[in-house]
Amino acid sequence: MILPSIITAQKLTYKDASLPIEERVSDLLSRMTVEEKVGQMLMFGAHRITKKGADGALVITQWGKPHLSNSLGGIKFPFQEESPEESARLNNELQKKIIESNRFGIPTLFVGEAYNGVDAKGCTVFGRPLNLATSWNLELTHDVWSVIGRESRLRGWHMVHSPVGDIARDPRFGRMSEGYGEDTYLTTEMLVAAVKGVQGSYDKSAPNTTHIGAVVKHFAGYSQVVGGRNFAAVEVSPRVLRDELLPPFKAAVQRGHALAIMPSHGDINGVASHGNPWLLTELLRNQWGFNGYVVSDAYDVGRLNFLMKVAENKEEAVKLGLKAGVDLDLYSEDVYVLLPEMVKKDPSLLPYIDRAAASMLRTKFILGLFENPYIDANETKKEVRSKANLSLAKKMDEESLILLKNENDILPLSKKTPRKIALIGPLLGEETVNTFNKIAGKKVSFVAEKGYELTNRNTKHPELTPRNDKALDKMVNLAKDADLSILFVGGDRFTAQEATFFKWVIGDRATIEPVGEQNELIQRVKALGKPVIVVLKHRRTLAFNIINENADAVLDCWEMTEFGDELIAKALFGEFSPSGKLPVTVPRTIGQIPYHYSMKEISFFKDYLFLESGPLYPFGFGLSYTKFAYSEPKLSSDVLERDGIIKVSVNVTNTGKVTAKEVVQMYIKDMFGSVLRPDKELKGFEKIELKPNETKTVEFTIRPEMLVFTGIEMKPVLEAGDYEVMIGTSSQEYKKTSFRLK
Amino acid sequence: MILPSIITAQKLTYKDASLPIEERVSDLLSRMTVEEKVGQMLMFGAHRITKKGADGALVITQWGKPHLSNSLGGIKFPFQEESPEESARLNNELQKKIIESNRFGIPTLFVGEAYNGVDAKGCTVFGRPLNLATSWNLELTHDVWSVIGRESRLRGWHMVHSPVGDIARDPRFGRMSEGYGEDTYLTTEMLVAAVKGVQGSYDKSAPNTTHIGAVVKHFAGYSQVVGGRNFAAVEVSPRVLRDELLPPFKAAVQRGHALAIMPSHGDINGVASHGNPWLLTELLRNQWGFNGYVVSDAYDVGRLNFLMKVAENKEEAVKLGLKAGVDLDLYSEDVYVLLPEMVKKDPSLLPYIDRAAASMLRTKFILGLFENPYIDANETKKEVRSKANLSLAKKMDEESLILLKNENDILPLSKKTPRKIALIGPLLGEETVNTFNKIAGKKVSFVAEKGYELTNRNTKHPELTPRNDKALDKMVNLAKDADLSILFVGGDRFTAQEATFFKWVIGDRATIEPVGEQNELIQRVKALGKPVIVVLKHRRTLAFNIINENADAVLDCWEMTEFGDELIAKALFGEFSPSGKLPVTVPRTIGQIPYHYSMKEISFFKDYLFLESGPLYPFGFGLSYTKFAYSEPKLSSDVLERDGIIKVSVNVTNTGKVTAKEVVQMYIKDMFGSVLRPDKELKGFEKIELKPNETKTVEFTIRPEMLVFTGIEMKPVLEAGDYEVMIGTSSQEYKKTSFRLK
Repeated sequence: MILPSIITAQKLTYKDASLPIEERVSDLLSRMTVEEKVGQMLMFGAHRITKKGADGALVITQWGKPHLSNSLGGIKFPFQEESPEESARLNNELQKKIIESNRFGIPTLFVGEAYNGVDAKGCTVFGRPLNLATSWNLELTHDVWSVIGRESRLRGWHMVHSPVGDIARDPRFGRMSEGYGEDTYLTTEMLVAAVKGVQGSYDKSAPNTTHIGAVVKHFAGYSQVVGGRNFAAVEVSPRVLRDELLPPFKAAVQRGHALAIMPSHGDINGVASHGNPWLLTELLRNQWGFNGYVVSDAYDVGRLNFLMKVAENKEEAVKLGLKAGVDLDLYSEDVYVLLPEMVKKDPSLLPYIDRAAASMLRTKFILGLFENPYIDANETKKEVRSKANLSLAKKMDEESLILLKNENDILPLSKKTPRKIALIGPLLGEETVNTFNKIAGKKVSFVAEKGYELTNRNTKHPELTPRNDKALDKMVNLAKDADLSILFVGGDRFTAQEATFFKWVIGDRATIEPVGEQNELIQRVKALGKPVIVVLKHRRTLAFNIINENADAVLDCWEMTEFGDELIAKALFGEFSPSGKLPVTVPRTIGQIPYHYSMKEISFFKDYLFLESGPLYPFGFGLSYTKFAYSEPKLSSDVLERDGIIKVSVNVTNTGKVTAKEVVQMYIKDMFGSVLRPDKELKGFEKIELKPNETKTVEFTIRPEMLVFTGIEMKPVLEAGDYEVMIGTSSQEYKKTSFRLK
Repeated sequence: MILPSIITAQKLTYKDASLPIEERVSDLLSRMTVEEKVGQMLMFGAHRITKKGADGALVITQWGKPHLSNSLGGIKFPFQEESPEESARLNNELQKKIIESNRFGIPTLFVGEAYNGVDAKGCTVFGRPLNLATSWNLELTHDVWSVIGRESRLRGWHMVHSPVGDIARDPRFGRMSEGYGEDTYLTTEMLVAAVKGVQGSYDKSAPNTTHIGAVVKHFAGYSQVVGGRNFAAVEVSPRVLRDELLPPFKAAVQRGHALAIMPSHGDINGVASHGNPWLLTELLRNQWGFNGYVVSDAYDVGRLNFLMKVAENKEEAVKLGLKAGVDLDLYSEDVYVLLPEMVKKDPSLLPYIDRAAASMLRTKFILGLFENPYIDANETKKEVRSKANLSLAKKMDEESLILLKNENDILPLSKKTPRKIALIGPLLGEETVNTFNKIAGKKVSFVAEKGYELTNRNTKHPELTPRNDKALDKMVNLAKDADLSILFVGGDRFTAQEATFFKWVIGDRATIEPVGEQNELIQRVKALGKPVIVVLKHRRTLAFNIINENADAVLDCWEMTEFGDELIAKALFGEFSPSGKLPVTVPRTIGQIPYHYSMKEISFFKDYLFLESGPLYPFGFGLSYTKFAYSEPKLSSDVLERDGIIKVSVNVTNTGKVTAKEVVQMYIKDMFGSVLRPDKELKGFEKIELKPNETKTVEFTIRPEMLVFTGIEMKPVLEAGDYEVMIGTSSQEYKKTSFRLK
């Protein structure tokens, strides 16, 4: 095939990197056919397009070939299972073929995902995103995501369908650990740090082409699915939506300059997110000024028809999704491909196609792909999984550990006291005992028994391992002979995972009790009359009442990195003090939810029959090996002007014996409002490190915009009146003062 | 005191019963001072105003006296603890004093409540309102409420703060049995029947002064409190609010002509119901045409300040409540009484006061109180708790029993087989064994053992009775010696009650598992290898999985009348076939909720890990001692015109051996919508009786207005397209057909 002469002409506007991106987009768009534009609106799974041949060479599939002549919007997960260098090499080759196959030399976005680090072979493994929230460390969050962005780029990827801005208020939901907990402010700050991290130092005027673009998801309300069941409807107060669920996304767009947004699988109050023009166009683009692209979640434009039933056929689904604002259709092979035919009958669709194709091209220009489509695989080898990156993973573990209970200061354990410690329980890792031996030194000896796996996957979906009395006895007997036991309990990954569209892949739970015989295990071990320390590993909030009751100490780990056990051992043996804080309220039972700390005051008014009052552990809670004394908070003024600020400061002193970090938290409560107001809301936090006897002053700035909420007319309002400011170590333990907004 | 001459003049307009009520209201209002008008806006507890003296004579309290000179809007619960006749006598006397104490001779409304019948001594006791819903019998519902209305009037009462139009979708909520279950259509029809019943044959042109006025509550969304915790916030989709929660209230106003409305304690999405002008004025009065009065729930206008925190002080609360539309303030002695002073400073409040006072006066005219303020106590004696009324209570029991399980047709039990039956369990009544002896005849013998009470109230709030092994053994031993056991299990009233404003009165639960050792009890009894029949008594939906598993038969009773055990015995021994159907979905665990059958289709898409799919029992379910065969449904046309109707009919045949009733249910599903649509919705039902081999044709009319929902623009829409019609014996077992709306 002879390429048309257009491609050989010099000084084409769209090829001129010195020109503004919008000029380049317009120019290129004006040259393209409808088919070529629609090509930009498609993203297929990599396996449909290409594979690695037996000889290591890149092969384009028969199915994929015709698609390459239009370039494509994106390809998902190319060479995910290859090593980073091999991935870089193959992606370079694939990109080259694509560029050479289409008449404008348009490159394609290679897209992946990132939960515990880049979701691909050979990259640095981090803890779950929720473990960043438990660290309450924004700089760390930025740095971790920066590694993710850089390692993705070095594989030859340009975007990840991450990070997640969903608010986790229902622990039944299998995906709760993909986000940053229950709180709007904490999630917003974490999400902005993550977006800025993954995009490098990206801002609108100077994209950092060393990194990648973020695809922030799931827009919006996704984690509020009824019953915590993935794909279920979302029924939500419009005021909660605006004031509590949307702000992280707004900040990701306006402060983080996220390059792309993915709508949620589901709906908001009956309106399917993939077919919601208010959400994807009016709010996101017109009000927030978003200029990137919107990519569907897997097959979700087509599902407007066959799952959501808001489109009577495929064509209607295409129209609904496109007009609402979905630019790029993920995976479907029979949905947006209908557009060239459809537009012949209905030319009014053309401007929407132009918007979509332009959004895709703009992203490719921003990421520098026209100029630098290839990766230097030498850098890949040098940087991916580098020492620095691995040490950052360890730092994340260190900062994310939460000490929930420590009766009689049983922790930290001494390395000097000779004793025998039993490491038992189904969450014990293969290397745990070796790791503990290394850290604890010679005077402490360990015996270990995992007992059994909590779940098995021999069936189509996870099933609980049947009761195993022999294994239980073995663990208890080990504990009997030891001086002290450390129990590794909680939930494995199969007890909290994403429930997919496939009927048999389920991951949501109707209870949050620990599965299996873990309660019995700790009761039997406790009955031995020796100290019991619990290491809690889990992906969802657990109502671990009985475990908690029977433990002398609880170290809450959520899901850490590959170095988790090393950092756990170091924490238990006092090499550092845990400094994490809960980013969620831990209820006593699933029957209490919704039960996040920032609910309206009246929602806490009544207790339940036959159940102790309050949560098992409150939001923001976490102990330390030292003690912190807080002074009374001091305000720079007790009146806040509408165009002013006030500052509030507090002195925090380490009154204990070891250096440790503390998360100083500021909550604000609006005492009266035209609508019912939250019991309190996090509005600032800072993680500081203090040596014994050291005092630091922490200062927060209170700005009027922090006090804005959606008023009775559904518009943002700022209401004069009294506000309480609480500064302390958790949402339940603080000192307070107040000011008046004029 | 000499009454002003105005009162002695003849032919005063407001006294002329031949004139239209609105003329009389205007005339009277024009003569009244602000203080007198505000007097109409107050309702106090009877104990504050009056009591029965030691000699039986009526005494007006010192505190009450000055209030009588303005008359009062209402007095709550006068002489509730007296016999009906004594109540009638004392209320006559009190009314006389009031009429004579104010210069216009305005009578006062005497107001009570009605749950299990009139909430006062000596009246007919009925089952809980939810037991009317289990009967699915609208005529019965009308008749029961008609007795309630008549018995109330015969005590000298004029209104009850009943019935309840709240949709029960959260079984944690202690008040769920005050309403008619989870479904909008069933609740709407039940509520209209109840309002028409309690108000006599009331319609706007001809009020029936033999009965009383209904106060429909709690407007709106009350039962949706988060976590099922009374007083908690209500966070709800506006579309669910409009399409599912408001319709019962709209029908109570427009079809039932309810005389009054009570707002909910709480809020809707942040807007306090008692301070919500959209709800109480725009929607209720302007759109729905409501012309009665709005009465606050106890203290709730004042609570806009001290509980809801939407008014910074009492005066603001008064303004907010009054302007929103609250006419009558219940109980508060320091809230609406501020109005005469407030209006001096702010005359703009006067029209609102006029509206409120006029609403109260209008009601009194409608109820004929100016002409006939007194009761003939002879009628009271004759009619209250009459034989006819008591037999209606029994009929309600008969119709409300639901047969949930009947393995191998173990029920009905034969009276002819000689055997020994053990009646055991904590829900056994004192008279149960005597009652069973009477019904079952001489060949069957009974032994009985209650074991223990589930709860005790020795403390401030109910506490669970501690485990009692002796009592458990006693019950099991009794079962061991018997041929068959009937277990009386479930929950007593203290395990499901209204949680009040007082901190120590709680009634909501975080789980819906049966309390105490009831699971263990049935497991031990079942292990004896003899048949086990369960009689389930309860006020809230229970997740009685283990009880269900171990029972050969389950007769679900909810909370019946004082004759409950008699009707239970008659049902068990086959004097009639149970014919009730579940008005709620029974989940397997509280962790499944929300889980009502009419949720959006996608909400049922995914299951939970480690939990069987679906509910324990579906909405509409209930077995019979016979079998019913349904024909394929036949449509009069498969096209519905927008100004037309279509009819759908089905033949139902009793193919079994006994006469029995069946509730034929029609569900409709909108196959595609501009917004996500319910999985299915009840749109018709009819309870029929069939002899063995008898066939009846049941016909339903499908009207376009049944298919209207709140569209994408939040306005009612009727959408062309395919609809499925399902007719059957429950929400899960039906035959289907379909039509197309043009």
